[in-house]
Amino acid sequence: MVKSISMVLMGCGGVGRQLLQHIVSCRSLHAKQGVRLRVVGICDSKSLLFVSDVLTKELDDTLLLEVCRIKANGTSLHTLTGECQVCADPEVMKRIMDIAAALVRTTGLALVDCSASDETIGVLKGAIHLGCCVVLANKKPLTTKIEDYDKLVSHPRRLRHESTVGAGLPVIASLNRLLSSGDPIRQIIGSLSGTLGYVMSEVEDGKPFSEVVKAAKSLNYTEPDPRDDLSGMDVARKALILARLLGWRMEISSIKIESLYPEEMGANVMSAEEFLVKGLPLLDKNIEERVRKASSNGNVLRYVCVIEDTRCNVGIQEIPKDSPLGRLRGSDNILVVHSRCYSQQPLVIQGAGAGNDTTAAGVLADILDIQDLFSS
Amino acid sequence: MVKSISMVLMGCGGVGRQLLQHIVSCRSLHAKQGVRLRVVGICDSKSLLFVSDVLTKELDDTLLLEVCRIKANGTSLHTLTGECQVCADPEVMKRIMDIAAALVRTTGLALVDCSASDETIGVLKGAIHLGCCVVLANKKPLTTKIEDYDKLVSHPRRLRHESTVGAGLPVIASLNRLLSSGDPIRQIIGSLSGTLGYVMSEVEDGKPFSEVVKAAKSLNYTEPDPRDDLSGMDVARKALILARLLGWRMEISSIKIESLYPEEMGANVMSAEEFLVKGLPLLDKNIEERVRKASSNGNVLRYVCVIEDTRCNVGIQEIPKDSPLGRLRGSDNILVVHSRCYSQQPLVIQGAGAGNDTTAAGVLADILDIQDLFSS
Repeated sequence: MVKSISMVLMGCGGVGRQLLQHIVSCRSLHAKQGVRLRVVGICDSKSLLFVSDVLTKELDDTLLLEVCRIKANGTSLHTLTGECQVCADPEVMKRIMDIAAALVRTTGLALVDCSASDETIGVLKGAIHLGCCVVLANKKPLTTKIEDYDKLVSHPRRLRHESTVGAGLPVIASLNRLLSSGDPIRQIIGSLSGTLGYVMSEVEDGKPFSEVVKAAKSLNYTEPDPRDDLSGMDVARKALILARLLGWRMEISSIKIESLYPEEMGANVMSAEEFLVKGLPLLDKNIEERVRKASSNGNVLRYVCVIEDTRCNVGIQEIPKDSPLGRLRGSDNILVVHSRCYSQQPLVIQGAGAGNDTTAAGVLADILDIQDLFSS
Repeated sequence: MVKSISMVLMGCGGVGRQLLQHIVSCRSLHAKQGVRLRVVGICDSKSLLFVSDVLTKELDDTLLLEVCRIKANGTSLHTLTGECQVCADPEVMKRIMDIAAALVRTTGLALVDCSASDETIGVLKGAIHLGCCVVLANKKPLTTKIEDYDKLVSHPRRLRHESTVGAGLPVIASLNRLLSSGDPIRQIIGSLSGTLGYVMSEVEDGKPFSEVVKAAKSLNYTEPDPRDDLSGMDVARKALILARLLGWRMEISSIKIESLYPEEMGANVMSAEEFLVKGLPLLDKNIEERVRKASSNGNVLRYVCVIEDTRCNVGIQEIPKDSPLGRLRGSDNILVVHSRCYSQQPLVIQGAGAGNDTTAAGVLADILDIQDLFSS
């Protein structure tokens, strides 16, 4: 007996497209595991591609791969024809809710958000309210105000979001296991940005901060404007997701975030190009001094999130060189957890924490993991 | 709406008793998570304690803690009275099957094996066949002949066994995520014995092997007869569980196992006491030489399992000192996984891999994780 998991994908960026490719290439593997993924709709920021009858039809593999191809080229979903239909904003969200309502009464639906949008929260809350499942790679819906969060987690088994922290690294799954077994989590320290992990381990070797950031940019490790990484906001969102997972009722505004550039080099003051050429080199001396000071204490600098007691901070910390975090090199992510069971030595989870492949793999594992909530 | 998970516990040793204590102390936590664990039966190697009507009654918390108390003192379950009933071998297994048959038709049943017995396989297979769930801390049922294994995993979603490898460390859960997302696992190297991990990191510091083993014994790190650890058989069972998880159809007899003592010091030749006093010191020189040779290559010795290509080996390996495995100290376990997503840098999971507390916590997390298979 094969179990069908019906899904609608939101977001056709790198992660969304990679997810579709994974789904197609895993067909025979999933058949062996007794499951089949039925993609009944795909939307980008403007349009929704969907099948005419979500109960009996699905977007076939040829079409899924065609979506990947045209979206990689920046073409609109409207160019696709065949048995499927396309609608455009503002009809998209209403149509997704119609699909959700139709499927939740029969087999169930997973609404999969691989976008980076803060506009999906409404439809996600609506889907959860109807009784659907939600799988997120998108951090935004979990980091808006606590009232929205409460609604998303109102049926915790129906929500999965492994890839919101550390890409596919089994961070959320592992913390959830500790939480359900009643093992009190006393401290979490994580290096959860591949970009900042790379930057901090390179400056440790004596390279100037500005050179390292430029190198990271040319390696495509950073966002187009590296300030989006250096602000620490992305790490803060991950920290908030972890803190809320632990039951903390807090907002992003309560997190103390250390930005690696000063306000006077902000996006409202200078362009990205100006920042790279003129602003960034002015920051070298300070970082160099901090690296040297840490080194004289046998420590290294790491950009970490720390969650313990009533504290949730994000910023540079001196870390013993001879510790899992201190030994971290390159763009790996690491999560270090102290709890009752992991008291003398922490639980450590480490590995690639970025990239479309591993992020999409984490989403796919989440989708497979909710299969017991689907009725056929 | 609270979901009830009915369970029968097999095994009242350290792990089983700790599990009962965790269940009682997690009552309010689990209520918040919307679940309630109903223990309807507990058996040791001789007797089964069970409620008269498994559909409506459960063993209450006072009784669960009383079971912990009397079993810690070595008293029989027969001394317990009240509303519950006790039956003895050979009736036990038949009675468990009756409970399974009654509950699977209504809410579902989790049969939880925290014993170290190789005699539970029959009732476990029977329960799976009926449609029940099985949660294992016991390695034996997964390491007998492949035909038995096939039956246990015939409904993979109904079987959980995190605590069979690395205690509560999220090893199986993480590998299952890679497997369901189609990320091909190319190599697993693990140090999966806290005892042998401790021994290997101590001899690295120049201490004689015999002294280290005796110290490990006095710290209660070893089995009463340390040869049970030094034989490598326990690690081989864990390796077999991992290899079979990857889909390898192999038997324990196909694993190349390096024993840390020679056949002529086996249990059929000398007593444990003789081994400790006379046998063990004869092994010091060889280990010392191997440690020195490894060190001259910049390596350390680790007792590891290696699963790659067609190879599944268990034994001492030279490992680069400056690697996650090489840096492992004390009794921590570590799993190092190379896959497509974790190719340049491996996925590393590390932490305490032994102890009743963490083993029972892993079992409890497994039980909570199958809740969607229960109907109320």
